[in-house]
Amino acid sequence: MIFIGEKINGTRKAIQEAILNRDADFIKKTALDQANAGADYLDVNAGTDPSREQADMLWLLEVVQSVTDTPICIDSSTPEVIKEAIHVVNKTPMINSINGDPARLKSFIPFIRERDCDVIALALDESQSGMPKTVAERMAVLERIFEATRAAGIADDKVYVDPLIMAVATDQQAGLVAFESIRAIRETYPQAHITGGLSNISFGLPNRALINRTFLTLAVAAGMDSAVVNPENVALIESLKATELLLGRDRFCRHYTTAAKVEFSKK
Amino acid sequence: MIFIGEKINGTRKAIQEAILNRDADFIKKTALDQANAGADYLDVNAGTDPSREQADMLWLLEVVQSVTDTPICIDSSTPEVIKEAIHVVNKTPMINSINGDPARLKSFIPFIRERDCDVIALALDESQSGMPKTVAERMAVLERIFEATRAAGIADDKVYVDPLIMAVATDQQAGLVAFESIRAIRETYPQAHITGGLSNISFGLPNRALINRTFLTLAVAAGMDSAVVNPENVALIESLKATELLLGRDRFCRHYTTAAKVEFSKK
Repeated sequence: MIFIGEKINGTRKAIQEAILNRDADFIKKTALDQANAGADYLDVNAGTDPSREQADMLWLLEVVQSVTDTPICIDSSTPEVIKEAIHVVNKTPMINSINGDPARLKSFIPFIRERDCDVIALALDESQSGMPKTVAERMAVLERIFEATRAAGIADDKVYVDPLIMAVATDQQAGLVAFESIRAIRETYPQAHITGGLSNISFGLPNRALINRTFLTLAVAAGMDSAVVNPENVALIESLKATELLLGRDRFCRHYTTAAKVEFSKK
Repeated sequence: MIFIGEKINGTRKAIQEAILNRDADFIKKTALDQANAGADYLDVNAGTDPSREQADMLWLLEVVQSVTDTPICIDSSTPEVIKEAIHVVNKTPMINSINGDPARLKSFIPFIRERDCDVIALALDESQSGMPKTVAERMAVLERIFEATRAAGIADDKVYVDPLIMAVATDQQAGLVAFESIRAIRETYPQAHITGGLSNISFGLPNRALINRTFLTLAVAAGMDSAVVNPENVALIESLKATELLLGRDRFCRHYTTAAKVEFSKK
């Protein structure tokens, strides 16, 4: 599993305050904790105020990179911010995100190709409609996205598809739609990665962490191989290790037994 | 999910002692706790000493039925014990178990038909070989079992197939073999139930409860609709409720949210 650490996000209150106060120590600790917990990428999102996003992003990148060399996932919807950021990061970054919107594809794809970035691709087209409802709608958008990435010479394995996870509380088929979408993406684009945030699925329900980690087990079995998560979430990570063990992906059970010794919560 | 409560089993030390001491109160409490926790059947296994199994089984059945009317799963490999027991139980019982052994099929099937019992069928033939290794071996045994049950007029939905779960510690493909077996059984015998104990899968590994409940999530997604479990295992049951929610089997999320209010562990 490829973990994208979700915590450095300016839409979260604690991070927003740290950005406003230029509290580098807090950002450093958040970055290091996620890196030490096994994040493969650290998502960096500078927040929502467009007038200061660029300056905040550059400051965040400098602070994060002063303590860890874990690759960065540059999380912004503003082409100018990304254009600048990809020249500041030390390692080849991931870009979060493109989608089916032709204008976004047109402005983002040159940067992605320029630095051979990985890129998260959301299975929606915000220029045409809201969130997709069916598996077929998601696959139709993805067809257009892969047409564009392939035309630009971007290999499928650089693309991390986010199938868009909806709330099961408002649509009890949302879990099934997610699993079917993941299976369809895995079959149609076998080289691509499949990622996504988990927390939408449990929106509005009690004991969300339980739903999120159960969802991850079923999503990984369906073909998901990455997730945007807090890698310090012990219950989530131990559940995932058990899942990979049960799916025959843990030779000699070594990852599981090692993790059980040092990481797992005691129960 | 159809739960078969596993706790009244003479091979467990506490139950063995209660049987030897005729400690009816302990058996009653064990029966009631499982019934109150939602068991659909209570497995009753009188233990391993053949010379006293019959007397012990009859005593257990009397004690259990004095406190609950939850149906009994008569768990014995001795035809004489079952023959007697099926006339003592108040409700139509389940028989645990038949397998591909022709002698066992020949001696058990008349009782099963006589009382229209449900029956657990293990996907092995102890008269021919040890534990099956592949999915195909399991399916070959099951073909012979269903031939026999169908010839006796036993409907497929009376049969609870146990696909035989092996330890992932000794064979890292054991989880995959179990899930593939479950999918094959569900496809070949759509009316049959699929059940089994979970604990074999985690034998020899740390934090077994975590592996068992993760296994159950994946097994239910593959088509398992019953399990031999301790229904008081809160973490297992809450994990299962989340699984059914995510598989679109919980209209208005009602089971999940109700259970979250009264049953779930606080975390």
